[in-house]
Order: sequence, then C-alpha cells, then structure tokens
Amino acid sequence: MTTTTAPHRVVVIGSGFGGLFATKALRRSDVDVTIVARTAHHLFQPLLYQVATGILSEGEIAPSTRLILKNQANAAVVLGDVTEVDLEARTVVSVSRGRVTVTPYDSLVVAAGAGQSYFGNDHFAEFAPGMKTLDDALELRGRIMNAFDAAELTTDPVERARLLTFVVVGAGPTGVEMAGQIAELSRRTLAGTFRTIDSRDARVILLDAAPKVLPPFADSLGENARRRLEKVGVEVELRAAVTDVDADGLSVRDSDGTERRIESSCKVWSAGVSASPLAAQLAAKSGAEVDRAGRVLVEADLTLPGHPEVFVIGDMMARDKLPGVAQVAIQGGRYAARCITADVRAAATDTPRPERTPFHYRDKGSMATVTRFSAVAQVGPVKITGFLAWLMWLAVHLVYIVGFKSRLTTVFNWTWTFLGRARTQLTVTQQQMHARTALGRLVVLEDARRERDAGAPVREDARAS
Amino acid sequence: MTTTTAPHRVVVIGSGFGGLFATKALRRSDVDVTIVARTAHHLFQPLLYQVATGILSEGEIAPSTRLILKNQANAAVVLGDVTEVDLEARTVVSVSRGRVTVTPYDSLVVAAGAGQSYFGNDHFAEFAPGMKTLDDALELRGRIMNAFDAAELTTDPVERARLLTFVVVGAGPTGVEMAGQIAELSRRTLAGTFRTIDSRDARVILLDAAPKVLPPFADSLGENARRRLEKVGVEVELRAAVTDVDADGLSVRDSDGTERRIESSCKVWSAGVSASPLAAQLAAKSGAEVDRAGRVLVEADLTLPGHPEVFVIGDMMARDKLPGVAQVAIQGGRYAARCITADVRAAATDTPRPERTPFHYRDKGSMATVTRFSAVAQVGPVKITGFLAWLMWLAVHLVYIVGFKSRLTTVFNWTWTFLGRARTQLTVTQQQMHARTALGRLVVLEDARRERDAGAPVREDARAS
Repeated sequence: MTTTTAPHRVVVIGSGFGGLFATKALRRSDVDVTIVARTAHHLFQPLLYQVATGILSEGEIAPSTRLILKNQANAAVVLGDVTEVDLEARTVVSVSRGRVTVTPYDSLVVAAGAGQSYFGNDHFAEFAPGMKTLDDALELRGRIMNAFDAAELTTDPVERARLLTFVVVGAGPTGVEMAGQIAELSRRTLAGTFRTIDSRDARVILLDAAPKVLPPFADSLGENARRRLEKVGVEVELRAAVTDVDADGLSVRDSDGTERRIESSCKVWSAGVSASPLAAQLAAKSGAEVDRAGRVLVEADLTLPGHPEVFVIGDMMARDKLPGVAQVAIQGGRYAARCITADVRAAATDTPRPERTPFHYRDKGSMATVTRFSAVAQVGPVKITGFLAWLMWLAVHLVYIVGFKSRLTTVFNWTWTFLGRARTQLTVTQQQMHARTALGRLVVLEDARRERDAGAPVREDARAS
Repeated sequence: MTTTTAPHRVVVIGSGFGGLFATKALRRSDVDVTIVARTAHHLFQPLLYQVATGILSEGEIAPSTRLILKNQANAAVVLGDVTEVDLEARTVVSVSRGRVTVTPYDSLVVAAGAGQSYFGNDHFAEFAPGMKTLDDALELRGRIMNAFDAAELTTDPVERARLLTFVVVGAGPTGVEMAGQIAELSRRTLAGTFRTIDSRDARVILLDAAPKVLPPFADSLGENARRRLEKVGVEVELRAAVTDVDADGLSVRDSDGTERRIESSCKVWSAGVSASPLAAQLAAKSGAEVDRAGRVLVEADLTLPGHPEVFVIGDMMARDKLPGVAQVAIQGGRYAARCITADVRAAATDTPRPERTPFHYRDKGSMATVTRFSAVAQVGPVKITGFLAWLMWLAVHLVYIVGFKSRLTTVFNWTWTFLGRARTQLTVTQQQMHARTALGRLVVLEDARRERDAGAPVREDARAS
C-alpha cells in the first residue's frame, strides 16, 4: 500500500512455465521484475524425453532466459539457488557458487517446481535417474546409448540380456513417452547399426503399481495407450510395485504378493514428484499446510495464508486437485501477474488493494504422445486417440516452445525422426560415458554442493544500483 | 600375402576424418572393417568452437558413427580406448569400462589424432581447457556463460573485470575463430541481456608467442585476420609467451623480457597439439622416429618402417611437413584404403603385393573464419579475404559435414546466428555450472579412469562369431 517513487519490485522464483509466463505477463506493468533461478535457461520439461532419446538438442528445449527476456526492459535474471524466503523482511536469499544475493520484493511469485520423488527411497536415484532436469535427460541419454554399446561388446548372454533390458518405472505421461521412444529408438533408429547384437531384441518394460496406464486420463485412453505401446514392443506390467533398485536390476512385488526380480542395467524413474523444499519452508513460516507431495495448500488467490503479496504457483501449490501440468503453471503465472498489476495500479491512485476473483483453472485438456503418429488427448468429456490426437499434440507443443527459431528446428527434427528413422542428437560425451554413469554424477553434484557451501558467502544486494 | 577364405580384416583406430574416410573408401572392397574408437561419434573438430560459443549443438558436429555406417555392411564399430597395438601378433587391444577387447587385423589404419599440448605444463589444463573434444567444447561453453553470469552478480569491480576478460592462447585457426566468436557473442548475441553489466564491455585477448596471427598462412592473410579481429574488439597481443596459468589469470612474458600478469577467469588453450600416445608406442615398436609433436615419421606410403600393413595417417603422422588439417587426414585415409584394396586384390589372384605410388597430398587450400562474413583463404598462391573467403569456408564446411540432415540444420543455425543475433545452443547444464568448472571435470575423468583400470579385465575377441 506504500506509494513510493521507486517501482514496485516483483521477484519471481523459478524460470519454468510459471515463472516465465508470470514475468512476461508483467511486461507492460509499472514494476521491476527479477527472476531468481537455478539455471540460466527456461526448460520445456514435457520434451525432456526427446533430449534423452536423441531427437532434440538441449538448446531447443532450454533457451536462455536472458535472451527470451532481452527486450523486456523491466525484467532481470539473477542466477542462484534460493535458500530462504524471509516473509517478514520481504527478501529472497539465493546462493550462486558461494556468493549470497539478497533480493528484496514487494510482491513475490514462487514457482520453483517439483523434483522427482522416490517415496522415501532416495538411494534408488543413483540407479534410476528421474526426468526433471536437463542433467537427468543427458544422463539418461548416456545410459541408454552406453547400454547398447556395452551389449555389442559383451559375449556373455546373461549380461547382454541385462544390458538390453530397459525398465521405465511409472506409467504417467513421461513414463509412457520414454518407454515408447526407447522402443522406437531400438526398433527403428538403431536397427541395423550394430553387428553382434540386434537392437530390436531390446526389451522395454513399463512398470506401474497402479492398475492402469496414464492414471489421470479416462480409462479408455489409458487402455488405448497400453495397446499402442504393446504394438511397438513395450511390455506393460501394471499392479507391479518396485521394492528395490540396484545397479543390475530391480525387485518388484506383484499384486498377488509375489516378489520377483528384473535384471536391467538401464532404469528410468518417472513414478512420482515432490515439490521443491521451498514449499515446506514457506508453509512452515506462514502456517499453511502441505500435502503428501510436499505442495503448499494456497488460498483461492494462490497466495500464502496471511500473505496476499506471496503467490505460489505451478507444481509447488495444491488447490482443487489441479494436476502438475504446464497449463496450471502458465495460467497461475498469468493470474498472479494480473493480481500484482491491479495492486500496483490501485496503489498508484491511493485506492485500497482491489478484491481478487479466485483463480479459476481453464482445462484446455491433457495429452500424451505414445509413439510416433499416435497420442491420446482428453479435452473435457471429449476423448481423442491416434493420429488426430498426435497432430493436436504437435500443434500445442509448438505453440509453447519459446522462440521462432527453436520452433522451426524442432519441426525439422520431428519431421526427420518421425517420417524418417534418424536421430541427430544421440551424441554422448566422454563424461556421460565414463563418469556420470552410476555414481559419477551424484558424487560430482555432491562435491560441487560441498564446495559451494564451504565458500565464505559474501552478502550483497542484487541490483544494488 | 596369405590367401584364406575369410575376408581380409582391416582395423581402423579412430573415428575422426582419417578413420571415417578410410572406412568409407573400403565400402566396396572385399574386406571386413572394424573401427575401434573412444567415442561413438565422428567429431567434426574444426567446428568445435561453434559448439563452445553456442551456435551449434553437439549432435550437429558429432553424429553417431554407427548411424553413418549403418548401410556399410562390411564395417563395424568397437567402442574402446586402444591401449596397445601388437605388431607381431597383429592385434589391437582396447578397453571399455574394464572390459578388454582384442581385435585381430591383417591391415591396420591408425588414425587416433592429436590432443592439446601444454608444452610440458600439463597443470595449465585445469585452468585453460583445450579445444579437442566435445567435452572440451561443452566445458568452455559452461565457463564462458558462467563468467558472464557471475559478472552480473558481483559488485566488486576488480572481480567483474576479471570475469569479463577472456583470454585465448594461440593464434592459429582455432584460436582466431574462438576469439572472434567470443567477441561476437559478447558484442551481438548477449548485448542487452544483462542488467548490471554490459556484455559488450568484455575484453577478448588473443595471445601468441609468435610474431603473427595464423602462422601457416601468408603474412598478408594473417595481417588481414588481425585487423578484422581488432575491428570486432579482440585485442591481439603477439610475441607474448604464456609462462604460467592459474584460476584467476595468467603470466605473460613479452618479447622484450618483461613479465606481466593478465587477470582473467576464463582462458582457452589452443596453442599446441601433441599426437596420441599411440604414436610413440608404434614408433618404439617399429623403430620409427617421432617429431617434437610426438608424431610418427612414416614411409612414403604412410606406413611404419618394416610394416607395410600398418598405416599411420592424419594428425598422428609426420611427413613432408604436412599440416594437421582435416584434408591431410581425409586424403591419407583414402590413400590407405586404396593401398589395402590393391593388396587384397593381388592376394586374391596370388600375385605379389603391388608397388605403391608414394602418398601425394593435394593441397586444396586452407581457410579460417575470422568473424561472420569474414574469412581468409589460401589456395596455392591465391589469397582470398573477406566475404568471398567466407562463402568458400561455408561451402567447404558444408560439404564435409556428415549427413544431409545435419547439413540443413547447420545452414539454418548459421543463417540465424550470422544474419540475426541469436544463438540457440548456449544451454549450460547444472554439471557444467557447478562441477566441471575448474577442477571438477578433471577429477571426474580421473576417477572414471581409475575405476576403469581397477576393474578386472576380461579378455575376449571382438566379433567372436
């Protein structure tokens, strides 16, 4: 409610769909926006599986946030991990390689997203990486290609079978897409490229403890996806709960209680998500509740209880059982921007903060690709499958890929992969080959974290000018 | 000279220009070709600088070797580091993650290339990575982008200046291209994307102990390149020898003997090359000599003395002062393939091994891009500069990029970057941000190597069938 000459300061935490669309929606508002984010890129998470399976390059799904916002003069990017939000002082504390930055805000939009959840079994992560970051996708690309390469070299049939068995845990959209693409990679792209193995012999197993594929979709769509997957050679095993994961495979408990073992070198985890730890911190500080996935239960205007200046949007917030999809984050970001703009206008004319109409999510439908030319889509009561759904998937994803250039090269890469067989982004670095596999990556990130934390932090304000 | 029913076995070490073109030239010969290579991709090394500076993705310059050779039924790829060539037993021993593979040969083409040389100062590598592998290029992409990001965050003017000073050591083609592209990145692509710094303030220094830029080119071309570089803001410092490199900068001795210090966070080393250690091993075993760069002095037919069945080609061999460029490797690979094909034909008709006409390098000219629209080229006595040279560079590089698809996307990316300002491959992963910087990457590779060496190797023959 203060009327100062300095512009209203909005801080946005996160550069995913929620953070980016909130920032862009504030383009014409009389505010200063600072995005505080861990990465310098905006990640198009729903296409990570295409980076993992060699269709797209990192750059195509992760353009530079600064380049996207280059012409938005009221927006700045501060790189850093947010360690603390001080709701009283109204500051965001972030750390970037030992340097602490404190960014003050008048309004805050928290959109830090969610990470992979192993339901309390975090040691699974080493053997079955998730699908949440670019690092994950490149790690998995390395593991998938390494498995084929190692299978080509071995003369032990047991080891070869283990190397050629790919297990995807979790039959949600990401799991379905990964399983479908690993199958197409082995059946189409790599077919005929090896000399001692036939890549088409690879087994691709999609596991889920649930009784159906694509649980958020209508039963008939899940059934359609299951049939399509089986047609391209994916073995779908439902009502199968993973009880353990190690370097050489996993233990599974079927619904009748029998335990069995699947030998597999390359595992992918897409079974669960848990909100950024910031959610729990904000909840504890504001007295809000968190749900089982660690998400904050927000007010009708997506704010923290007692903090109308703090919005929590996207995968971090729980409200009306909204799903963790891009559209919820995008619409939440735009809603928060509209509320902030209205507040700022009111303050400029010394009128009280206007009433907010509650956030209303407009369901534009959900979709998942299964294989090339085949998808499932659900728009309200309407269910669409097959090629038509795939065309819709294509159109919708292109609209939300940021940047005209990336859109064009993506279309180009898709044409090449889906009409032809080739994939041009199967490249694996030495690091992906040697170090990142299994323990390497985690050790590295752990070391980096330790090193970062050891650095004597220097406090200073962002945009001190 | 033996006449057996089994096809003549050719082993090719390395999947660079030499190895790939040798293999392709053996397409119609009655031989079995096995490429033994450390990476699963063919690397277009002359364009690494474009990966490092965000123009191209890894996949565009490093397509899968197996996919390239998919339709060449007589070619196979064995992934592994070659540790030994047994000239008596005629076998190549390679290691891939603890597994030893022994591949027998009748003819051998050694094309393992060259690495960066620090002239005995290998500890420089940690602070000034070279430009020889994809890992190098991605490491440098991370360091360049991290430097700008860190400069945006700091409030210390001394630190900011150090972060915004980029030093490229070595004014050969790679150094000139890197310096030119870092300058364009800071002046064009990133201009206007930061809020507390102006990326155009970045200093880009190109250092060389030699008295001229592009030493292998005619003086006038080097002079032209120097002027062009200075025009885009590169500071060219010649007759300046680097005496030490550390995390925060480097020590330089000028030609008059004065020592000075340049504060710089991000350094690139492109000052020297040294042949793969396999060169020394082969020389020791065959009694051949090696030159100062560790290259084998080969016979007129590019073979080891006393071993007409072992060809050494490309950056690993020394003969007639040929330069270490792609064309020498390509022509050497094709020459070796022709000799092998002639030998095999002779053996099939029980005639003696035919006389070999000595290898003759056809100089198709050398070229280097300086900045966009500007290059220098030298074809025999003809010197070309500016836009025309740049068009030639464009055409020649497109011809040698493998794969129609990569050629198209590359043209597309170039159009975008050179006519516009944007770059779509500036993406940096968490690993590039945190761990790889400085020590991280080396530690990781060291660990991987140790782990690999510790694994109890299992001997087995490749293509045992």
